[in-house]
Amino acid sequence: MRIIFFYFFILISIQPLYGQNKVHEIKIKKIFNQALTNGKAYDWLDHLSNQIGGRLSGSLSAERAVKWGNQELLELNLDSVFLENVMVPKWVRGTFEYASIITGPGMSINVPVCALGGSVATPAVGLRAQVIEVYDFDELEALGEKNVRGKFVFYNRAMPADLINTFEAYKKTVDQRSLGATKAARLGAVGVIVRSLNLRMDDYPHTGNMSYGDLPNKMRIPASAISTNGAQLLSSMLSLNDDLYFYLKQDCKNYPDVPSHNVIGEIKGSEYPDEIILVGGHLDSWDLGDGAHDDGAGIVQSMEVLNLFKQMDYQPKRTIRVVLYMNEENGLRGGTTYAENVKRKNDNHIFALESDAGGFSPRGFVFEANEKQFEKIKSWKPYFNPYMIDRFTLGGSGADIGPLRNGKTVLSGLRTDSQRYFDYHHASNDTFEAINKRELELGAAAMTSLIYLVDQYGF
Amino acid sequence: MRIIFFYFFILISIQPLYGQNKVHEIKIKKIFNQALTNGKAYDWLDHLSNQIGGRLSGSLSAERAVKWGNQELLELNLDSVFLENVMVPKWVRGTFEYASIITGPGMSINVPVCALGGSVATPAVGLRAQVIEVYDFDELEALGEKNVRGKFVFYNRAMPADLINTFEAYKKTVDQRSLGATKAARLGAVGVIVRSLNLRMDDYPHTGNMSYGDLPNKMRIPASAISTNGAQLLSSMLSLNDDLYFYLKQDCKNYPDVPSHNVIGEIKGSEYPDEIILVGGHLDSWDLGDGAHDDGAGIVQSMEVLNLFKQMDYQPKRTIRVVLYMNEENGLRGGTTYAENVKRKNDNHIFALESDAGGFSPRGFVFEANEKQFEKIKSWKPYFNPYMIDRFTLGGSGADIGPLRNGKTVLSGLRTDSQRYFDYHHASNDTFEAINKRELELGAAAMTSLIYLVDQYGF
Repeated sequence: MRIIFFYFFILISIQPLYGQNKVHEIKIKKIFNQALTNGKAYDWLDHLSNQIGGRLSGSLSAERAVKWGNQELLELNLDSVFLENVMVPKWVRGTFEYASIITGPGMSINVPVCALGGSVATPAVGLRAQVIEVYDFDELEALGEKNVRGKFVFYNRAMPADLINTFEAYKKTVDQRSLGATKAARLGAVGVIVRSLNLRMDDYPHTGNMSYGDLPNKMRIPASAISTNGAQLLSSMLSLNDDLYFYLKQDCKNYPDVPSHNVIGEIKGSEYPDEIILVGGHLDSWDLGDGAHDDGAGIVQSMEVLNLFKQMDYQPKRTIRVVLYMNEENGLRGGTTYAENVKRKNDNHIFALESDAGGFSPRGFVFEANEKQFEKIKSWKPYFNPYMIDRFTLGGSGADIGPLRNGKTVLSGLRTDSQRYFDYHHASNDTFEAINKRELELGAAAMTSLIYLVDQYGF
Repeated sequence: MRIIFFYFFILISIQPLYGQNKVHEIKIKKIFNQALTNGKAYDWLDHLSNQIGGRLSGSLSAERAVKWGNQELLELNLDSVFLENVMVPKWVRGTFEYASIITGPGMSINVPVCALGGSVATPAVGLRAQVIEVYDFDELEALGEKNVRGKFVFYNRAMPADLINTFEAYKKTVDQRSLGATKAARLGAVGVIVRSLNLRMDDYPHTGNMSYGDLPNKMRIPASAISTNGAQLLSSMLSLNDDLYFYLKQDCKNYPDVPSHNVIGEIKGSEYPDEIILVGGHLDSWDLGDGAHDDGAGIVQSMEVLNLFKQMDYQPKRTIRVVLYMNEENGLRGGTTYAENVKRKNDNHIFALESDAGGFSPRGFVFEANEKQFEKIKSWKPYFNPYMIDRFTLGGSGADIGPLRNGKTVLSGLRTDSQRYFDYHHASNDTFEAINKRELELGAAAMTSLIYLVDQYGF
């Protein structure tokens, strides 16, 4: 009798759990099937990339992207779609960027360059000066003002190729781009040339944000990225003749801030409407390519989460909100404004997921969560195993959702195969052609599945 | 005292194990560093793809590839390098392939086609006939001779998009290509048009092997692949007008077998020279592209295993042998000949690893092994975890090494991210440009690490 009673308890305690797991497994299979056979992400990205194109904050293209995002979300028949006002920086590349290595009287070799975002222009006639190559700030400081004054500083530290996660290689070299001009200017340099943050050897210069910090206006010097092939050529030339001259001309310019918007849409939760689950990416991009990977992919994947729920007639228990953030690239104003408004309104975000690692094959997710939260998340790994997207780790989630960090809200980022990311990052080859439809769709399906589980279980 | 004694035992029993693990961990880290910063795989593949190009068995290009492989292995200073004679089929595409949908008198639309490998030619003036579209052989049989005789059979079953492993999607559709002509010929069809085995919608026709089996020569009908866009167009046209005509002309031809070679090189083992560890891929490719992914990648990755051992001054305990197999694509003569010679000479292969899944990001390995062997292999997974290449499963290994299957030798295949593989497979866009250097190198490093562990531990 006791034995029968015991078995009975096992049955009622395990069976429902197994049943529930099976339900989720089937639901997630449906999500993947739907994304791979009937999703909207790829066509959306085609439009965003090819009909709208590069969409730097403050540009007319960025405003077209806002209108497009708003319109597409309206067509999903969400419970609400609205714009959030954000003031954004406005920097324009201008019409002309040009550089050459001057190897002798009347002799020069053109090299591919692009102004770094936020940089000042050169004088209208351009800048001509000697070049000093440095590996890092330590070497620069050791050289001191006497060796630097009046010259271009050429930062030529390559992204380390031996790191498996290429974002780590980026972190180890991005200081040259972001702070290089300020450091060099303080030692009297006239401009900086920065090796593109690219693991390939090719002819594409890669832009990206830089800042002068509190450097007085009159001390600000032009900053330009040079392609990896160009950097290698310049370095090789310098090794033969260290009093080479370099010529740079660029006419980029900073303007006062202008108004723009985050685009927001949501499906109201049926049971816990006040618990918000956020998914998003950034709508702005750099101006060189069409921003298909950075971060058009994240935008359409985030929109796809709500689209798939609608297509599958899934009514979430909690409120699912998509945010198309403005101005991640050169200011993070969308992210900070959104978080300020959340705080002001005391909105309760239980989870925020960002996709901003390119539309490549998804490998898993990274989480900012406490131990108890992460234990729950890890229990979901088996659902992602059949799709090979079950690498769940703790770590930094995403720039736009970063300002929501409060020790309670779980933050997460989609992690993709990172090997090809920096081939395209911030360069003119970041275009729709570099997107694989299935890889993009698998990312969207993984995100939808994770959001589904968070909606089912909460935190 | 007993407690101290006990701890002492723990120390001496665990410490060495830990130490050995650490040694392997460091060695594997070095293998990855070396492959990513100083490997030869990418430059080799550049040469094989761009200087030699497509290398179908029996072609002059295939012989150039044999010479090149032999020469490159000689330059690695291996203990021996030799050629193994193999007789291979010779099929040539000819100079002309052309197809159109005839929509009315004097009106036609050209569609991209390519002859399937092994197909016979059309008559010199081409073939003009009505078209009947079928989903599979069941539908074909149900239609029967009365509906098929005198027509083209158009096999239009798309690779299913909802399968995560695209090789499974391939398996579910490849019968159309391999057996479609024979099935249709037996019902009186004049030719077959097969939808390309490609998950993308694009304009590339994908070739691949087909066979007439024991079908008498006079019954053999031409077989051609049509691009996915072309297939969709033809299907759409047929839905509007089912007595459309289709025109096909191709002048491919089968010749008698010709001699060719497997290229083999090895480093003799210092402790167990008679235990052979094999690594390989196939040197032949289809003729449309330059075979960079299929299987130039596998060739240079296999050569890289021995190169890295040489560069790192690693003296293996067992004999490490690289085999560049000839004729995987349309005959598997290299694989069968090699295995016959192994059997004849009674050579002891403890392990064989094939790379033939494209030069994409590696995800893990598949093994043909018994339970005890697989337990040992699984204990190595932690070494591959930092590189995200730790998906170890049981399953089919590789075509070339398949004939070595004897229930004792462990067979293995590198498993890559398969999402993009069929975008290029057997088509003219399978070129060096579609290769990412780091993805290729990571595969080579993973293979070298696995071979290293097998060499250390044996089976």
